[in-house]
Amino acid sequence: MPDDANKTAAVLVIGDEILSGRTQDSNSHHIARFLAVLGIDLKEIRVVADSQAEIVAGLNALRRRYDLVFTTGGIGPTHDDITADAVAKAFDVGIGYHPEAYALLEARYAPGEFNDMRKRMARIPHGAALIKNTASVAPGFHIGNVYVMAGVPMVMRAMLEAIAPTLPRGTQMTAVTISAAIGEGSIAIGLAAIQEAHGDVAIGSYPFYHDGGPGTQLVARGRNPNTVERAAQEIEAMLKTHGVTPQRV
Amino acid sequence: MPDDANKTAAVLVIGDEILSGRTQDSNSHHIARFLAVLGIDLKEIRVVADSQAEIVAGLNALRRRYDLVFTTGGIGPTHDDITADAVAKAFDVGIGYHPEAYALLEARYAPGEFNDMRKRMARIPHGAALIKNTASVAPGFHIGNVYVMAGVPMVMRAMLEAIAPTLPRGTQMTAVTISAAIGEGSIAIGLAAIQEAHGDVAIGSYPFYHDGGPGTQLVARGRNPNTVERAAQEIEAMLKTHGVTPQRV
Repeated sequence: MPDDANKTAAVLVIGDEILSGRTQDSNSHHIARFLAVLGIDLKEIRVVADSQAEIVAGLNALRRRYDLVFTTGGIGPTHDDITADAVAKAFDVGIGYHPEAYALLEARYAPGEFNDMRKRMARIPHGAALIKNTASVAPGFHIGNVYVMAGVPMVMRAMLEAIAPTLPRGTQMTAVTISAAIGEGSIAIGLAAIQEAHGDVAIGSYPFYHDGGPGTQLVARGRNPNTVERAAQEIEAMLKTHGVTPQRV
Repeated sequence: MPDDANKTAAVLVIGDEILSGRTQDSNSHHIARFLAVLGIDLKEIRVVADSQAEIVAGLNALRRRYDLVFTTGGIGPTHDDITADAVAKAFDVGIGYHPEAYALLEARYAPGEFNDMRKRMARIPHGAALIKNTASVAPGFHIGNVYVMAGVPMVMRAMLEAIAPTLPRGTQMTAVTISAAIGEGSIAIGLAAIQEAHGDVAIGSYPFYHDGGPGTQLVARGRNPNTVERAAQEIEAMLKTHGVTPQRV
């Protein structure tokens, strides 16, 4: 269960291509797994359009509510890359060429190739620090409690690795997942009783269909490995009373 | 570009399992593609935790802002399925056994198997209409402008098909996607000019990396197939001036 000492986080995905159904977002799932390992509690994900008003509103709502916000998308060289300007507006700061970002990008291109659109990638809100991009040079940036990253998954992941050493650590969740070939409705009463007895463990029930028959994955999650293990063992014992063989997965 | 006559929509994904990184959400992508075909403009996706306060706040924000809201998750029989109660609270209505839902579920189970937890699936907010579930009986429901569906993808898809005939239709987007083996920075100036000349077409640029070299997918989207086609042809002509061969994909 939530530990007040753990930092909270939100992800803001900026992308018409997700909302139109063209692309399936994988970045938020990657960030969710990444934060779980660090012991940072991801509380919310939002996907908004490539619209300055939407980005500003979403970012301001999330950065005021959560300790950390991670954005993906919209920091390339083309006309539809408007995230940096939207972030500057959300923070009510100016924006301009960042000397280090400019130099990095200038060094990357052949003479004459560093055109005005490419220079857009060096436009960074005032007061922001750069996030290193080992994949394709153009940096992300960090301002206040907001981390602004690329939308291309390979580049986003490189940026996440770059900021990892600087992020806070919390108590990592312990999770035990138990799978059984039984419908969740058959075990819901026993499961509710186990949940009732273990207030510091969150027990989730996720039905699935396998070979035409029902199955359920039961997940016990919490910060105390001992209480998670006790709850998991009670779930396994309860499943056996229903004549099924629980399997840890 | 947006057509005021088209309905707007949002998706609210309810699921600790998404935020913890355990599961990658695929429902919102499926809904995005489904709505695109109907000509309904998906404007926002939110993922929130299995928390009544979070569900109520998210749902009230979205249902007031958009014409239609689709929720997924949290309508099963177990203790962690709290969506129906949260929706009732958001709409400030009562909740109880829905006679038709109760009868459907009762008929499904052997005598004595329709226990109190399974009966939870018949609890529907007052004033809601059922959404048929051809996959696993337990229905979803529809109240005001909100459609409440299961989280299991197979079941969610069945519910989406069930409501499809009742949803409004709009002007479908036409999209032309052009792929070229060139970095987006090299064509950003030409692309911005084409965007400038075609206000009713949204041109998106999506870089990728292929065999170690840069590539870009350019997407022209709009409601008028003729202007989309003209913009696409200008993009192709522009790409050829850079010595690359555009491919429609």
